[in-house]
Amino acid sequence: MQENMKPSQPLILVSNDDGITSPGIRTLVEVMSELGEVVVVAPNSPQSGMGHAITVGETIRLDESDIFGNVEAYECSGTPADCVKLAKHFVLKDRKPDLVVSGINHGSNSSISVIYSGTMSAAIEGAIEGLPAIGFSLCDYGHQADFSHTRAIVRQIAQTVIRSGLPQGIALNVNIPAKSSEAVRGIRICRQTKGHWGEEFEERKDPYGRRYFWLTGSFINQDKGEDTDEWALKNNYVSIVPCQYDLTAHYALPLLNEWSWDK
Amino acid sequence: MQENMKPSQPLILVSNDDGITSPGIRTLVEVMSELGEVVVVAPNSPQSGMGHAITVGETIRLDESDIFGNVEAYECSGTPADCVKLAKHFVLKDRKPDLVVSGINHGSNSSISVIYSGTMSAAIEGAIEGLPAIGFSLCDYGHQADFSHTRAIVRQIAQTVIRSGLPQGIALNVNIPAKSSEAVRGIRICRQTKGHWGEEFEERKDPYGRRYFWLTGSFINQDKGEDTDEWALKNNYVSIVPCQYDLTAHYALPLLNEWSWDK
Repeated sequence: MQENMKPSQPLILVSNDDGITSPGIRTLVEVMSELGEVVVVAPNSPQSGMGHAITVGETIRLDESDIFGNVEAYECSGTPADCVKLAKHFVLKDRKPDLVVSGINHGSNSSISVIYSGTMSAAIEGAIEGLPAIGFSLCDYGHQADFSHTRAIVRQIAQTVIRSGLPQGIALNVNIPAKSSEAVRGIRICRQTKGHWGEEFEERKDPYGRRYFWLTGSFINQDKGEDTDEWALKNNYVSIVPCQYDLTAHYALPLLNEWSWDK
Repeated sequence: MQENMKPSQPLILVSNDDGITSPGIRTLVEVMSELGEVVVVAPNSPQSGMGHAITVGETIRLDESDIFGNVEAYECSGTPADCVKLAKHFVLKDRKPDLVVSGINHGSNSSISVIYSGTMSAAIEGAIEGLPAIGFSLCDYGHQADFSHTRAIVRQIAQTVIRSGLPQGIALNVNIPAKSSEAVRGIRICRQTKGHWGEEFEERKDPYGRRYFWLTGSFINQDKGEDTDEWALKNNYVSIVPCQYDLTAHYALPLLNEWSWDK
């Protein structure tokens, strides 16, 4: 929280999926604190790959944390989506955030990864709650990932959204190229690349002779379009994909209506 | 597996999110066994609300099960999406399923619930793998839910999809009204209802004086359309929503391209 904070400053909710102790969320909290009043509700443990999971039939813990000094912060035993729900309905109650941000994720969430992403589930949950929301990811999985170049980018994008709002029902999926010798070339509005993970499961035996598996695999890009997030990132641009939670494939409705379902 | 099975019978992969011991998946396995060769890979414990979670950074177990008699079946420690991945890439390997079905879920997955649904994550994972896929849900959360009326409906819809295929990148979200004195009136192709869960968190104290929460809440329908899944179900129709995993809000691209992101 900044000393010169004005009461009219925007209220910004911060969450993530790597957990409250990750360097990525610290960077995000620091940048957002320059833009407004920050409240953090983030998982108390890593939640990567959680997709849009919520905690049903189990209890949820929420504890205050002083990990960010003067910034109001809570660690939560639930998923990223749980964190945003708890923030909205319990922590903030009648205070409506002007912006929900999630991340900065350690690793890319471009293309189909958006659907497995805990980072984006927090942002999409914000959108479901009717709030402007952004998920930020850095295309660097390393523990020692350098977030320094993300600060100006994250700040610009967050400021634009605070200024302009977002269309109802949309959360932004922002991916930032890993730090390299060449400066990032700019920002591109993109569509989600058509692609999937070519899974391989590595089979091993545990010390007791029972088999287990590790999920591995590599991304298969089925899309040569230059308007995609993969193209942007490969060409050292920041990619922004507007994501919606209406999953209806509207274009398929007429076709399915022609079929004889009762025969 | 049926005695009179022909080699040309369709191969059907069955999964769910309530776990391999639930009555819903038993009904689905029985009906699918009338239509083709069935292989089951399902979670070994309930996975409701798992959204599109996958298991990253943790091991996955897979064990054979004789729970369905002669039907080839495996129980998996992972999520519904993990089950479909493991089935495709390890269990079935070079055998491509003609259909992936998930469910029958104990409880509705209409409207926004699709995004939190483990049942639908298994179906959508099938679609990502390029396979025709359907998630079935019964709008009855009760432990004693009556699945008898779902059999003919599930059979009809599965047969239609085996016959016609599905457009690439689409999984069907099928919801079936709870059993009542009135027969189901038919099948409707629908769009996802605009709505959200009005969350409330019930705060309690554990025996040690520490607080915890239960997620509760009720569905808020913001959509009066008669072409929606909520309308269909309320009027005793089966709802079918074609769902896509391309989350891009294509309509928003021109607007976002007009904004000055670098200022």
